[in-house]
Amino acid sequence: MQAVIDYLNENQSRAIAELCEYVRFPSVSAQPQHRRDLRACAEWVVKHCRAIGLEARLCPTKGHPIVLAKTPRAKPHGARLPHFVVYGHYDVQPPEPLDLWKSPPFEPRVANGSLFGRGACDNKGQNLAHLKAVEAYLKTGTKLPCDITFVIEGEEEVGSSSLATFLRENRAELGCEAIVISDTGMPTPKHPALTYALRGITSFEITLHGPARDLHSGIFGGTVDNPAMALCQLLGKLRDKDGRVTVPGFYQGVQPLSAYERKQFARLPFKASEYQKFLGVPKLFGERGFTPLEQRSARPTLEINGLTSGYQGEGSKTIVPAWARAKITLRLVPNQDPEQVMKQVRRYLEKLCPPTVRLEFEAGHGAEPYLVSPTGPQAQAALRALKSAFGYEPVLMREGGSIPIVNDFKKILHADSLLLGLGLPDDNAHSPNEKFDLGCFAKGQLMSAYLWQELSRV
Amino acid sequence: MQAVIDYLNENQSRAIAELCEYVRFPSVSAQPQHRRDLRACAEWVVKHCRAIGLEARLCPTKGHPIVLAKTPRAKPHGARLPHFVVYGHYDVQPPEPLDLWKSPPFEPRVANGSLFGRGACDNKGQNLAHLKAVEAYLKTGTKLPCDITFVIEGEEEVGSSSLATFLRENRAELGCEAIVISDTGMPTPKHPALTYALRGITSFEITLHGPARDLHSGIFGGTVDNPAMALCQLLGKLRDKDGRVTVPGFYQGVQPLSAYERKQFARLPFKASEYQKFLGVPKLFGERGFTPLEQRSARPTLEINGLTSGYQGEGSKTIVPAWARAKITLRLVPNQDPEQVMKQVRRYLEKLCPPTVRLEFEAGHGAEPYLVSPTGPQAQAALRALKSAFGYEPVLMREGGSIPIVNDFKKILHADSLLLGLGLPDDNAHSPNEKFDLGCFAKGQLMSAYLWQELSRV
Repeated sequence: MQAVIDYLNENQSRAIAELCEYVRFPSVSAQPQHRRDLRACAEWVVKHCRAIGLEARLCPTKGHPIVLAKTPRAKPHGARLPHFVVYGHYDVQPPEPLDLWKSPPFEPRVANGSLFGRGACDNKGQNLAHLKAVEAYLKTGTKLPCDITFVIEGEEEVGSSSLATFLRENRAELGCEAIVISDTGMPTPKHPALTYALRGITSFEITLHGPARDLHSGIFGGTVDNPAMALCQLLGKLRDKDGRVTVPGFYQGVQPLSAYERKQFARLPFKASEYQKFLGVPKLFGERGFTPLEQRSARPTLEINGLTSGYQGEGSKTIVPAWARAKITLRLVPNQDPEQVMKQVRRYLEKLCPPTVRLEFEAGHGAEPYLVSPTGPQAQAALRALKSAFGYEPVLMREGGSIPIVNDFKKILHADSLLLGLGLPDDNAHSPNEKFDLGCFAKGQLMSAYLWQELSRV
Repeated sequence: MQAVIDYLNENQSRAIAELCEYVRFPSVSAQPQHRRDLRACAEWVVKHCRAIGLEARLCPTKGHPIVLAKTPRAKPHGARLPHFVVYGHYDVQPPEPLDLWKSPPFEPRVANGSLFGRGACDNKGQNLAHLKAVEAYLKTGTKLPCDITFVIEGEEEVGSSSLATFLRENRAELGCEAIVISDTGMPTPKHPALTYALRGITSFEITLHGPARDLHSGIFGGTVDNPAMALCQLLGKLRDKDGRVTVPGFYQGVQPLSAYERKQFARLPFKASEYQKFLGVPKLFGERGFTPLEQRSARPTLEINGLTSGYQGEGSKTIVPAWARAKITLRLVPNQDPEQVMKQVRRYLEKLCPPTVRLEFEAGHGAEPYLVSPTGPQAQAALRALKSAFGYEPVLMREGGSIPIVNDFKKILHADSLLLGLGLPDDNAHSPNEKFDLGCFAKGQLMSAYLWQELSRV
């Protein structure tokens, strides 16, 4: 292992130079004019993979191609090694608005120990860190204790629409013990993190229909229900004063936070007063009995995302509106089932809805919550690798959003994903002046090198 | 009186011909290109008033001129006669959409006992009916028991913005016992009506401010209040399940309906099932303990006129919106005070508003409710005139909307308005194919003739 570590330390300048090359491709998947840049970027990745000793190929999809790269496999008659898939993406977010960038987004620049450029952190720097670790094994002739396959796609920022098909078509080749993904975050450089849970989601829209048309509130007001008022009264009942969702059965599937998890949450750096100031709210509010960090990642929520009814222009218009609409999403936690929750909510709304308006319910998209046991052997192995690389006790995190591909991996490859993000909160992913901390880049390479050792042992 | 009645009966064809002349002017006050047509129409009214024996003049205003026409006054040394003002307007609503008219809006056409044309009912036919009655007195040499002044304006359909100034400037000349206005409606030709009360109004807008910007509902959802949810919970508390407004003190000023009034309401032709079908609602809803007719005109309401928050486009957007807004109007009844009610509502909202959002309150326009005692001598006189003219027992009505000029008359001239509307529900006022029932036109003339006798006696 020492050879691997020495190799990595000695080759940092080159690694940074390679990351600059990688970042220079304007591989903006959302913008059709960059189709060729995406292809060129993918080809660069293939070439790079081959240069470091991987067997790599470009796999066409209906959208942008996927890079598939494998460590040279052991001889057929040798013992079967554990197999891990590393997922990453070479496409990036649009750089706009350009005038807010301090230097051009696709002209990488090193300053203050960071590399600035679109995609530096999300996700080029992070997937390159894993490639560098594997390169170190291969170039130093250090035996890898496992087989590794890289899947680096070009459509992550536009919904990964080709990935599931690709996984299904290559299921045999991709069968593995776990998927390793570095595309999330860590709280500070001193808090390397394993994200072990994600929230799921379910979404819908309801419309309450009242009169056949907007009515004059003077002539008719008082004899018909007001759909906007009915909507307020209906939705107002969905959350109680303790911040709990009142839908019957809603909390049934929720796996309670263990004492171990809550202890981990308490270790995360967090100041409520700063957080409140950052969000600009008069006062924080969430489910009673949980800390804000728990509330935003380990507890389910019901949010109204939009309200529309009647007149919205200047001044007033004296009408009883014909209808009122709300867009609603629920963030779900392990082990709530999006379909089941949707049914519970719908049933409850139908029960509460007064006969004076007609309820229209339109279901939207859903995603399942995700959880890898933080005390399971793979998670513990990942934590050891993090600690060895960063020199700090790692933290366990849950994330409040969803990463739908994680569910695809679970469903299609039947393997868990280890989310070992190297992004910092101020890395400006998706924003102007995106950067990647070069310390995190270097430590990430070490972490990956240790990870194959740790993971292969479990 | 018989001479007057005979004169009216004998001159119906001519009266209809004159109404056609009057309707031919496209006096659309909302459309600047019709400024000259309004002036021409006003001049026609002056000429017509003079031709029937009135002293008439055109009074310039900042907008369209007002016609002032008076019956010849008694000699200075004679006994002072009672004085009544007849209000009407010569301006009309825009005729658009033109393609829905069966004949051109300004080419009056008689069919099925009605005169079709924009302004036929609202309000040319109705004010001409009063002019014809006075003409009958003057042309037959029948002594009028009162002085009468006609005020016929040209800005009613655009807010009567010059009328209050005109009233103030001519207060001495316009001092009177009552104002007579035929610009409302009657339920059927067999239900001549006196409208004795109008609802007032107060309006405002509230915005609940949460986070400084829309927040990602995955990353932050669960730690801050959702302004749309807070708005729903706040507004939902303003009306109870019995349809009553819950604002403390709200009903304090409300003058209860007397047994006499409720008896009058019960006499109005009304079928709940037809009404419900007409409005297209699944079920009627209003304040418990009152009939729909009472609810829509004699009881106060709180209506949400518009809701705006977050994302309103296609699909979903997973945000906690930064703010949520509602437009609200309250219809008020005698003797609620718009200012006072606004304060009560504001105070209540501030009390209910949680500390997790910031409440912004923006006051809008208001109008006072209006009431003439239906058992008072003037109202009873009007009812007798209606009965004599129509041959049916008249009904007493309240109207749910506001007619702001009525409050101007009350405040500036200190006189009540008698609302003796001749319009039928199917007259299409403000809609294509406006018409005026020629039976109502003739009966309206008779009613006016009787009215001066009845009113002058009280």
